[in-house]
Amino acid sequence: MGLKSFLDVHPDSHFPLENLPYGVFKPEPSCSARPGVAIGNYVLDLSVVSSAGLFDGPALKNSDCFNQPNLNKFLELGRPAWKEARSTLQKLLSATEPTLRDNATLRAKALVPMDKVQMLLPIAIGDYTDFFSSMYHARNCGIMFRGPENAINPNWFHLPIAYHGRASSIVISGTDIIRPRGQGHPSGNSPPYFGPSRKLDFELEMAAVVGPGNELGKPIDVNEAADHIFGVVLMNDWSARDIQAWEYVPLGPFLGKSFGTTISPWIVTLDALEPFSCEAPKQEPPSLPYLAEKTSRNYDINLEVSIRPAGQGDSHVVTKSNFKHLYWTITQQLAHHTINGCNLRPGDLLGTGTISGPEPDSLGCLLELSWNGTKSVTLGGTSRKFLEDGDEVIFSGFCKGNGYIVGFGSCSGKILPSLP
Amino acid sequence: MGLKSFLDVHPDSHFPLENLPYGVFKPEPSCSARPGVAIGNYVLDLSVVSSAGLFDGPALKNSDCFNQPNLNKFLELGRPAWKEARSTLQKLLSATEPTLRDNATLRAKALVPMDKVQMLLPIAIGDYTDFFSSMYHARNCGIMFRGPENAINPNWFHLPIAYHGRASSIVISGTDIIRPRGQGHPSGNSPPYFGPSRKLDFELEMAAVVGPGNELGKPIDVNEAADHIFGVVLMNDWSARDIQAWEYVPLGPFLGKSFGTTISPWIVTLDALEPFSCEAPKQEPPSLPYLAEKTSRNYDINLEVSIRPAGQGDSHVVTKSNFKHLYWTITQQLAHHTINGCNLRPGDLLGTGTISGPEPDSLGCLLELSWNGTKSVTLGGTSRKFLEDGDEVIFSGFCKGNGYIVGFGSCSGKILPSLP
Repeated sequence: MGLKSFLDVHPDSHFPLENLPYGVFKPEPSCSARPGVAIGNYVLDLSVVSSAGLFDGPALKNSDCFNQPNLNKFLELGRPAWKEARSTLQKLLSATEPTLRDNATLRAKALVPMDKVQMLLPIAIGDYTDFFSSMYHARNCGIMFRGPENAINPNWFHLPIAYHGRASSIVISGTDIIRPRGQGHPSGNSPPYFGPSRKLDFELEMAAVVGPGNELGKPIDVNEAADHIFGVVLMNDWSARDIQAWEYVPLGPFLGKSFGTTISPWIVTLDALEPFSCEAPKQEPPSLPYLAEKTSRNYDINLEVSIRPAGQGDSHVVTKSNFKHLYWTITQQLAHHTINGCNLRPGDLLGTGTISGPEPDSLGCLLELSWNGTKSVTLGGTSRKFLEDGDEVIFSGFCKGNGYIVGFGSCSGKILPSLP
Repeated sequence: MGLKSFLDVHPDSHFPLENLPYGVFKPEPSCSARPGVAIGNYVLDLSVVSSAGLFDGPALKNSDCFNQPNLNKFLELGRPAWKEARSTLQKLLSATEPTLRDNATLRAKALVPMDKVQMLLPIAIGDYTDFFSSMYHARNCGIMFRGPENAINPNWFHLPIAYHGRASSIVISGTDIIRPRGQGHPSGNSPPYFGPSRKLDFELEMAAVVGPGNELGKPIDVNEAADHIFGVVLMNDWSARDIQAWEYVPLGPFLGKSFGTTISPWIVTLDALEPFSCEAPKQEPPSLPYLAEKTSRNYDINLEVSIRPAGQGDSHVVTKSNFKHLYWTITQQLAHHTINGCNLRPGDLLGTGTISGPEPDSLGCLLELSWNGTKSVTLGGTSRKFLEDGDEVIFSGFCKGNGYIVGFGSCSGKILPSLP
């Protein structure tokens, strides 16, 4: 049985008292952006809670971190402040605590119905890095493009492969995505074609949000890495496979990815995910010492992708996967990222890479599901090899607790046609 | 003959009235950061000029862009503001203009001796992109790693290849660089080694600083791209070749680059470079229409790299190159970057990639100069294959005018030993 709030929280809600994910919102279009947490069907306005003097612990008492248009200042404060905020808010929202429950004026100011608010990017993202940490995804891509003999490069099992992504084009769930134009991979010796991407895809990912981070030149130990991860979001790393295939040798993906990346509005904290932690896959060969964790943990997060074609009311599930399929943990990713001295800053985003599972119906992108367009994915009465204009792609994610759910809400985006 | 300032500017100075490059500085360590331009041996404090009401044109009269800790707000204003600032400052500093020349109080406030100031990063860099636009560099790397048959990938002649770089670790000239640790490429089937990089290198680059930029989904036409480039800096994209070689397949360079990138403090504007523009190399095959420029221009900028080994007073020139060797122009780079809808923001940095020329003594990195460590580069009484601890690497760049020089000053950094 879950914790009890004075607010009515449905057992199927993604946002019970056990979750309390952080986002940034506007209560009205004319209001300034401010941090909030989701509770049931409401958003609790943290600027109001803070102004009312209800954050009275040592880390937050004198901080203006909740009177900011993003969460970066809160993230910078680190785990002591995060723990303090969580315990303050769990108490404040509990059924037995009168402070907010019995103060109608404060309640009216602090609690905004979720269907009324506009959600914004919760963080100012200085740098966005994308990893490649699902072995199933790496193997499938390798088989498609290099054949089964050399499906996975030898380096893959020694380090969490990653590339720098584009921070400017990260958008919040609900933002339309314009089909990118670009040069597509030619067949044989013909010149490349130019035009709207013919192989537009989603990538089912999650992303870790960095907390305090590190100074340039000072790596973060893998066993302290969790203190630098505030929480996790759903992420769709939209990909134009034809553009990517032509441009990516030898320096990696560029325009095939940089036209848009969508994240979910709610950051679910590692503290909320703790009850759903599970053992990470055994790594063979064993990691080098700087990647060897005392405890190597994943999280059991159910993930699902559905597509709603233009004009249809219903969306259709195309894949179900799970965060626990990742081979490299997010703490290993973070430690690896800094081992050369690279500095991480509060609000940096570390994408997991496409999270594919072992089963044919757990693949995390259409490239894999349609095997590079050689077969169709059924979608109610229609089918897809890649995304078509008007398609809305909807990710959701949740952890199943005993009598409650810790969820991520959804992460969605609709494809608009290319510019003429 | 050059323009004449009331200040004494030596004919060999990089900073005559024709140049007026922009930077950000502190007159004293306790002062706030503010924009300035270099003139001879002085820095002109633009916050003082602005507060004195001397920017009286329509674009700048009511702007607080020079009362900022970086140039981003000025960059966002675009070419009309840049032109207005240049003409205001050229007049203000000219020999015949009394406003500043004859006002000792204002002069004392506004002009700070260059050897007294601390230079800072001139821009807040949202995203940093690195291109790969020297054909000589691409060919040499290709020959080394893939052999002469397939030295340059087929895509290279169709598009300006690039990757996203790390913005957080860009530092200002003079910042020490700690030798990165990481996994190095194993020989044969042995496991990778771990430790301080054994193949630390510089990369001679320049980088364009983005002006207004574009909204997500709205590409910039190649013939309007120059209006989105404020100016150019020298850039050293430090590289750990052994880390890079092991990690870069299939997603490109990551930790081999992200431990540090050094830029010069002064941004030389395209307006100041205009007299040194020259025809860009003929492109074959011809570009696709979106990359075809009405006028395709490079700039004749002399570049030089020298190394000063630890404990030595003298530095030794190891290579001389020129910006004009680039195959893809910076305007093509910018247009390509946005063709998929990717948004550029004021202050974004677009690196050219290593600028190697056709001659053996015009190669832009030690990887090429030492042919991946198979031969030595002489350095006065000693020699190098890659960089050693204590080495200071100094870039300089200048354009030779008739009786004056438009220069970039220098871009330097010293290698410190790895952490234990």
